Amino acid sequence: MSKKVVTLGEIMLRLSTPGFERFVQADSFDVTYGGGEANVAVALSNYGLDGSFVSKVPDNAIGQAAINHLRRYGVNTGFVARGGDRLGIYFLETGASMRASQVIYDRAGAAIADADASEFDFDKILEGADWFHTTGITPALSDKAAALTEAALKAAKAKGITTSIDLNYRKKLWSKEKAREVMSGLCKYVDVCIGNEEDAETTLGFKAADTDITKGELNLEGYKDVIRQMKEKFNFKYIASSLRESYSASDNGWSALVSDGTEFYHTRKYDVRIVDRVGSGDSFASGLIYGLVTGMSMADAAEFGVAASALKHTIPGDLNHATLSDVKTLMKGDASGRVQR
Amino acid sequence: MSKKVVTLGEIMLRLSTPGFERFVQADSFDVTYGGGEANVAVALSNYGLDGSFVSKVPDNAIGQAAINHLRRYGVNTGFVARGGDRLGIYFLETGASMRASQVIYDRAGAAIADADASEFDFDKILEGADWFHTTGITPALSDKAAALTEAALKAAKAKGITTSIDLNYRKKLWSKEKAREVMSGLCKYVDVCIGNEEDAETTLGFKAADTDITKGELNLEGYKDVIRQMKEKFNFKYIASSLRESYSASDNGWSALVSDGTEFYHTRKYDVRIVDRVGSGDSFASGLIYGLVTGMSMADAAEFGVAASALKHTIPGDLNHATLSDVKTLMKGDASGRVQR
Amino acid sequence: MSKKVVTLGEIMLRLSTPGFERFVQADSFDVTYGGGEANVAVALSNYGLDGSFVSKVPDNAIGQAAINHLRRYGVNTGFVARGGDRLGIYFLETGASMRASQVIYDRAGAAIADADASEFDFDKILEGADWFHTTGITPALSDKAAALTEAALKAAKAKGITTSIDLNYRKKLWSKEKAREVMSGLCKYVDVCIGNEEDAETTLGFKAADTDITKGELNLEGYKDVIRQMKEKFNFKYIASSLRESYSASDNGWSALVSDGTEFYHTRKYDVRIVDRVGSGDSFASGLIYGLVTGMSMADAAEFGVAASALKHTIPGDLNHATLSDVKTLMKGDASGRVQR
Amino acid sequence: MSKKVVTLGEIMLRLSTPGFERFVQADSFDVTYGGGEANVAVALSNYGLDGSFVSKVPDNAIGQAAINHLRRYGVNTGFVARGGDRLGIYFLETGASMRASQVIYDRAGAAIADADASEFDFDKILEGADWFHTTGITPALSDKAAALTEAALKAAKAKGITTSIDLNYRKKLWSKEKAREVMSGLCKYVDVCIGNEEDAETTLGFKAADTDITKGELNLEGYKDVIRQMKEKFNFKYIASSLRESYSASDNGWSALVSDGTEFYHTRKYDVRIVDRVGSGDSFASGLIYGLVTGMSMADAAEFGVAASALKHTIPGDLNHATLSDVKTLMKGDASGRVQR
Amino acid sequence: MSKKVVTLGEIMLRLSTPGFERFVQADSFDVTYGGGEANVAVALSNYGLDGSFVSKVPDNAIGQAAINHLRRYGVNTGFVARGGDRLGIYFLETGASMRASQVIYDRAGAAIADADASEFDFDKILEGADWFHTTGITPALSDKAAALTEAALKAAKAKGITTSIDLNYRKKLWSKEKAREVMSGLCKYVDVCIGNEEDAETTLGFKAADTDITKGELNLEGYKDVIRQMKEKFNFKYIASSLRESYSASDNGWSALVSDGTEFYHTRKYDVRIVDRVGSGDSFASGLIYGLVTGMSMADAAEFGVAASALKHTIPGDLNHATLSDVKTLMKGDASGRVQR
Amino acid sequence: MSKKVVTLGEIMLRLSTPGFERFVQADSFDVTYGGGEANVAVALSNYGLDGSFVSKVPDNAIGQAAINHLRRYGVNTGFVARGGDRLGIYFLETGASMRASQVIYDRAGAAIADADASEFDFDKILEGADWFHTTGITPALSDKAAALTEAALKAAKAKGITTSIDLNYRKKLWSKEKAREVMSGLCKYVDVCIGNEEDAETTLGFKAADTDITKGELNLEGYKDVIRQMKEKFNFKYIASSLRESYSASDNGWSALVSDGTEFYHTRKYDVRIVDRVGSGDSFASGLIYGLVTGMSMADAAEFGVAASALKHTIPGDLNHATLSDVKTLMKGDASGRVQR
Repeated sequence: MSKKVVTLGEIMLRLSTPGFERFVQADSFDVTYGGGEANVAVALSNYGLDGSFVSKVPDNAIGQAAINHLRRYGVNTGFVARGGDRLGIYFLETGASMRASQVIYDRAGAAIADADASEFDFDKILEGADWFHTTGITPALSDKAAALTEAALKAAKAKGITTSIDLNYRKKLWSKEKAREVMSGLCKYVDVCIGNEEDAETTLGFKAADTDITKGELNLEGYKDVIRQMKEKFNFKYIASSLRESYSASDNGWSALVSDGTEFYHTRKYDVRIVDRVGSGDSFASGLIYGLVTGMSMADAAEFGVAASALKHTIPGDLNHATLSDVKTLMKGDASGRVQR
Repeated sequence: MSKKVVTLGEIMLRLSTPGFERFVQADSFDVTYGGGEANVAVALSNYGLDGSFVSKVPDNAIGQAAINHLRRYGVNTGFVARGGDRLGIYFLETGASMRASQVIYDRAGAAIADADASEFDFDKILEGADWFHTTGITPALSDKAAALTEAALKAAKAKGITTSIDLNYRKKLWSKEKAREVMSGLCKYVDVCIGNEEDAETTLGFKAADTDITKGELNLEGYKDVIRQMKEKFNFKYIASSLRESYSASDNGWSALVSDGTEFYHTRKYDVRIVDRVGSGDSFASGLIYGLVTGMSMADAAEFGVAASALKHTIPGDLNHATLSDVKTLMKGDASGRVQR
Repeated sequence: MSKKVVTLGEIMLRLSTPGFERFVQADSFDVTYGGGEANVAVALSNYGLDGSFVSKVPDNAIGQAAINHLRRYGVNTGFVARGGDRLGIYFLETGASMRASQVIYDRAGAAIADADASEFDFDKILEGADWFHTTGITPALSDKAAALTEAALKAAKAKGITTSIDLNYRKKLWSKEKAREVMSGLCKYVDVCIGNEEDAETTLGFKAADTDITKGELNLEGYKDVIRQMKEKFNFKYIASSLRESYSASDNGWSALVSDGTEFYHTRKYDVRIVDRVGSGDSFASGLIYGLVTGMSMADAAEFGVAASALKHTIPGDLNHATLSDVKTLMKGDASGRVQR
Repeated sequence: MSKKVVTLGEIMLRLSTPGFERFVQADSFDVTYGGGEANVAVALSNYGLDGSFVSKVPDNAIGQAAINHLRRYGVNTGFVARGGDRLGIYFLETGASMRASQVIYDRAGAAIADADASEFDFDKILEGADWFHTTGITPALSDKAAALTEAALKAAKAKGITTSIDLNYRKKLWSKEKAREVMSGLCKYVDVCIGNEEDAETTLGFKAADTDITKGELNLEGYKDVIRQMKEKFNFKYIASSLRESYSASDNGWSALVSDGTEFYHTRKYDVRIVDRVGSGDSFASGLIYGLVTGMSMADAAEFGVAASALKHTIPGDLNHATLSDVKTLMKGDASGRVQR
Repeated sequence: MSKKVVTLGEIMLRLSTPGFERFVQADSFDVTYGGGEANVAVALSNYGLDGSFVSKVPDNAIGQAAINHLRRYGVNTGFVARGGDRLGIYFLETGASMRASQVIYDRAGAAIADADASEFDFDKILEGADWFHTTGITPALSDKAAALTEAALKAAKAKGITTSIDLNYRKKLWSKEKAREVMSGLCKYVDVCIGNEEDAETTLGFKAADTDITKGELNLEGYKDVIRQMKEKFNFKYIASSLRESYSASDNGWSALVSDGTEFYHTRKYDVRIVDRVGSGDSFASGLIYGLVTGMSMADAAEFGVAASALKHTIPGDLNHATLSDVKTLMKGDASGRVQR
Repeated sequence: MSKKVVTLGEIMLRLSTPGFERFVQADSFDVTYGGGEANVAVALSNYGLDGSFVSKVPDNAIGQAAINHLRRYGVNTGFVARGGDRLGIYFLETGASMRASQVIYDRAGAAIADADASEFDFDKILEGADWFHTTGITPALSDKAAALTEAALKAAKAKGITTSIDLNYRKKLWSKEKAREVMSGLCKYVDVCIGNEEDAETTLGFKAADTDITKGELNLEGYKDVIRQMKEKFNFKYIASSLRESYSASDNGWSALVSDGTEFYHTRKYDVRIVDRVGSGDSFASGLIYGLVTGMSMADAAEFGVAASALKHTIPGDLNHATLSDVKTLMKGDASGRVQR
């Protein structure tokens, strides 16, 4: 029987300029809807699991369109609350070569930030679920959203459901201090923690030798050190992160590290020619979750996650439309890109 | 020498679905920027006047794009303050036949709503100006915006500049009671008041025999009655309004009534096949202002205004891109639409 | 509790030229997915009912996209079988004025035409259903599809579910003789029959005074005569049809006639300015079904159906994206098309 | 066997704004290629005749694209000379309601204006031809182009080929005086003259009671008077013109008058909802030529021409993509615009 | 005098997603028409030869549009039969990086598959022809299509026309066994055989040391071995193949090997950044044919072919729009891509 | 206080094919407006300087749209003369890999080519200016344009304003001989000369050891030699050039050399993945001018210029929409292209 995964978080209206246009040139925006946790629910539904997304969106046609976007890809949106003032928005212009992509967030006052835990019946929502996932973005939105996140995690743990969080520090949403306070509280309920060395430092306060993130080199030893600290403090079952080497806005190296706190597994590295890298972290998380919830080994799950998210870089939009078969073909080593007829 | 007109208000990002798509169908939005007072500044610049627009927009690329949109059409944006959190947004889907166009506002937290009068040097802004214009939307945004509007009107009056306001009641922004209180205060500084019978009732409390606005029939006598009351209370120099007969979302009758409180002039009526009717009220206001500030009679100014705004209905976007020559040709009676080679 | 309606039929890939381009000019096609019964399921889901669609689509990305299109609008597609060779296609160019819209069908070999009744567990599919709907297109596709339709109708009747059929004669799919033989067999299981005088003649053999369908005039008496004959032979509970007066490809008159065989009700007539008239018959059927399944009187249900389908004419695509509130507003008489802010 | 018609003239790059955008709003242009005589060649090829187009275009990719556009629709372009500096361009923005469409010509220095008669082997070009057609635009381009036109007409007459000209006065290209001098010379070689009362006056100097072309009313008597004068002076076999009643840029009345100088035939009048009216005169000319060259009576040929050109108004671009079957259906009276499946 | 080349095969409607969108994301398809033999006819016409294409397309507007697409680029389509049910379709989504492009064929029931040799007058079609070309796709479509192919090849041989075939094995159309049987029969009439080692094995049964096609490495020795066997069995005049090294869906190595069975020539290798690789094999074939038919040496013809097809990779659509001058510039070594002004 | 820079030259309508389409495929063109000197004015306005552009454009909507395009980005267009016949046009198709971008100029008869120095009041135009810039394209347009350029340079020198010229030889506009004669005259008034070795040879006659521009290798020594000669003859304050290594149409090396005639500074080299390289030379010029006019050292100004123009390669259109902050971030070494949130 198909595994059920529930995610909770914000879904936003994404407005991106066509092609490589900058904001000041654009006379139209491409429209999709996405967000860390929604992206995970879609990817898992694409792989054939039963993905559920929990959030709150305004009771107007824009909120409806967000729900429709998720339904289109098979996500159960039956528990999305309706109300509040607006859907959060983010504006994206896609970079190339040495010009970085730019994201402008316009998410203040989003419906989910004012959602109350009482609007959600977690007993029903989590009924039969195998996994619950959220990210460090949701609790950063507001104190109410942090409380909602905690309520969901607690309910999941109470039901014996595996839980995961993607640390995802957003500096425009909260300070390091606040993040550390809140996230340390939440991590008590978390089994699988996804986050790179930088996020581990900003949101949880772990520190190792410096990684200069603009350099495009990996500092695996530093990160391993941090992972050991994370294991010790929170006793996570698994700690994982995708590892990006930013050669330019057009080309990246892409791999992942996963650990149970003792053993470390560094995946195959892909050199990706980028079409759209937004959502690639979420596509790694969903791939990893897919692997673990369907019983793969830690290493296989990480390979699945990194192959899935390598493919995401080639797909426009936040969502990973790679299929199970696409990911498995790539995992088997066929990155030749020959036409499939 | 070219006349100078200053307008103050909000500029918003307008996101509209292509063609006649509904929001739930749209995968892209057409992007323009507009708002009541900005639209007036653009139209007047198109007619060759020196149009200035005063507002506040966020200090990011979206705010810059809004400024650029006005500059493109010749508006002086040198006094637009930069800062605040976001640009207000409105979503538009264009109706047809019996399906009405839908507007979803997302303007809470807009930069202009939190702008302080101290951010604007009205002495410098109004230097050499012949006319100042604003609308009832700006004071409805926040108490600060109402104070800003009052400061601007006062400064204009102090300099002997003609002032105008378009009542434009927006029920989602404030209550009738609040509107009446604030607007009655502002109208003390106003020379030319633009607004139909309905707005006169909601924002100023004047009442005559009912006009059922869904019927597509005009009740001129009721409106004349209201105008006389407005004249008596505020001693406006001119009171004017466009008059819409909504046969359907595709076809409207369009004329205007103008009065000095004693005499009434009802313009020629145009039957318009609608391309985009958003901003048609603003295009009437700008046409009327153009006429009056360049010395036309009340009747001629109204005919100019109604011809200009009839043309606006045929142009996509908020802005009226009709030229002086287009309006004058139509005023002379050529509505045949023959190709101009 | 929300009513559940199940529909069975074909879903096709619709490829339409942009704007008013003819096929020979087109360098891109707009893509949607639709079909008579799918359109009904979507419209009912839009009104808040629990709409289910049963069909068969190929097990490739095009088949998936068809499913996704229905899921987007809330339809339960859990019982759509996967397999077969291809999705049926239809090409559409939209006419204007005296130029008629053109449809080119390319549906031979579609997966649904080769679907076997054994692929569908009607017991489960119809569990808890209140209504079952199909059309005369499905049995016309192939003998297997006719057998499938009969199996579904029988199963529905066995469960006491109300059934409806839209006669929808397609001359390129079968002869009158074949149609009459098959449809007469199916109508034994039908409670509500939707079809105009012409369809009643071609598919069921009923005949009255001629209606020249190109003239744009209605011959209600002839149709009433036919309805009485239909009642007598099949004892339908209700017989209904939309009534189109084709003034041109751009403007139509639109009303409906409904009867229980004894009483006749002719609805309000709408003059519609057409954006896209494909699917308007389905939108009438779904509106009528909505009305009847939620307990409206025959007359109210017909008024709901005709208002809903009048709105459909203003919406691009096969699907009716009018909401419950849109339809109700129009039923109350507001066809003024004034902007809703 | 299929009739062969040769036309000679300019082909231009047409750059039109999308939808109803004005030039100052446009960020893209739709690209087609057309011109009076090219449009005629395409329409005749669409009806199954052997249409040939003679012109000169620059030897670059833009010139090639112009040729390709005609080849696409079956025109023989084997005699188009290559060379010169540029292709003439015209910019088009499509009007609506009371806003007229605007055409900006940019045709100075076009290759055809500098083409020499010696570049064309008319013996070979006209071999087997049944009809030769040109317009008053070509000789207006330059003295060389006038000489080229005369050479072609003379060659056609020498071979006993029926010749036609569409007067088509363009005031930006030459004065009335110059036009009259040149066109009077050319008309000596013309059998069928197409042109309305206004063109007859400007280019040939015939005058009758005034027709105010902006009024949307026809003055048939005045035009008949002019036709009699034309017959007397040039002994044309047929004189014909389409007759436009411009109610607005969106709706026109459309009919035609044809005469052999003695009898007059006024066709059925169509009320057309306009998609794109550019090229409608050419589509009338080509319809008339089709009728006459295939042996229809004068009246039938005019009815064919006016039906063909009524359809043209509903098709984007300069070219008439109506098929023979489309025109015949409309001639038989079916203007109902019902979907053709 | 210009050389005449006749090709015979299928032309399909190609529907491709915009940009890098996957099928499930697409709301429009880009439309072109192409197919192996049609692509060759277009490329040769672009180089200035007299290219003719023989096929059968349905007698509707989609069939007409396919013909128009070829005419646009100068191909003689005068011998294309009209009739049958439909045009074959293929859907394409363009890959990037490690995500392969996907092709979904929907060609069952295509008009050409049911075309009878009697519908084509090969005596007339091949009159004056210098070369006849087809591919292994056409005979794979149906037994009738195989018979048609044989008839054409025989007729060409009888007239002393050089013949070529591109092996092009399509595993979804027929089995290896069937392919070998049919193709071995056809190859008796073939002078120039185009096909790589893999195709030689699948369709003709020749086998050498393995080449793992996903690895992106060439195994020239194995292929040479196969070529010698092909020469021996069929006495081909030339045997050639493009050689692709698939580094990824975005970057390929591209060269060619040509042989007369004794000597082997391996061309320069190009590293291509891919825009659209569909049709690149056809563009090699057409370049090779161009070289040979115009009298180049085997080596020069191969260099022409590989340069032409390297350029094809940079052009959207099936067709190679590289001009003679483009190819010659590249052959001379200028691959710098500097702007040509 | 903000520095003021005035530029003089041509602004053209740029019509480019979408994506990588070739001209013969295109059914729409993307529209922007640009030209060497206009591009410089826009870039400097983007950096916050007061950029003024002087030119002449036709008094129609296309001329207006050109002005609007510059105003949109903050350029002062108050001194652009209106009149003349047309706006110059250039057509662009964007290459990829080994296929070079193609530019087709259609600029004969452009308004600026016929502009008279008397139409410009340079005293007023240059009031308060810190820098004047033009290019070798303007004097190449016509003798009148050369006289206009000289008048402007003289006026600038008379006011003590720093002057610069970008040599920019265009072989289709004039011969080397003519260029050398005119440009040598103009260079007497120039302080900063921008131009590579090739331009120095064609327009000024300086010659050193050969650089084969198709090879993608730099010959710095030869260029230094030329620079010394330029210094000696014209006593330029600075001589600079961007240095392009054309690996392909998709990838270039990009650096710059600057010198005061004695010292030489070669900047950091960027490897750029190209989105649109048109206007990159202008973006280097504007970056260099920005640096020098705001007081940077020669080396820093060159680094600013090369970083700015590296970014330009990633932005569609002629104009450089990189901001001051974008350029400074890149100069500091962050070319990692990581998403900026």
